[in-house]
Amino acid sequence: MIAIAEENTNENNERARKEENVVYIGKKPTINYVLAVVTQFNGGMKEVTIKARGQAISKAVDVFEIVRNRYLTNVKDKSIVTSSEELTNEDGTKTKVSAIKITLIA
Amino acid sequence: MIAIAEENTNENNERARKEENVVYIGKKPTINYVLAVVTQFNGGMKEVTIKARGQAISKAVDVFEIVRNRYLTNVKDKSIVTSSEELTNEDGTKTKVSAIKITLIA
Repeated sequence: MIAIAEENTNENNERARKEENVVYIGKKPTINYVLAVVTQFNGGMKEVTIKARGQAISKAVDVFEIVRNRYLTNVKDKSIVTSSEELTNEDGTKTKVSAIKITLIA
Repeated sequence: MIAIAEENTNENNERARKEENVVYIGKKPTINYVLAVVTQFNGGMKEVTIKARGQAISKAVDVFEIVRNRYLTNVKDKSIVTSSEELTNEDGTKTKVSAIKITLIA
């Protein structure tokens, strides 16, 4: 109970820790993100989330498929959720972009 | 019961009917696939499946998000499943490609 109380009093730390098991998919080669996910699980994480937006969504699915087919065959998807996010452009206009969140469990 | 028996004796017809509620995402503009999905639901379908491979996966998520946010707000995802498919190239080598299957229900 004390441990929980401590966590709640230090929100910044807790948020940093929660973000540890999130892998954001960007423009780097697919294998970089595959290794990031594998490293998290090998470091003891029980759950890792892959997040991507727009064109990177395809790469997020590639990362998940490569992780579970080639590296960690015990890993599976706990949930796959899509959403729509609104971005503000430099000129103030708004653009909608799709996003995906794949939560993996070991 | 007679209706079921008839369906089973005419497998080709049944397969054609089953495929009716599948929308394959390709290289056409996103709105084309959005309208294809909306048309299926408006034609009385209770369930429509969106399928895509490789780079088209991002577009599949866009289609789903646009359908449920702009056109049919009662539609939601029954399931989102990813997989890995093996394609044989012209020179006989094999390539793996990720795929997604989003099943929508009204």
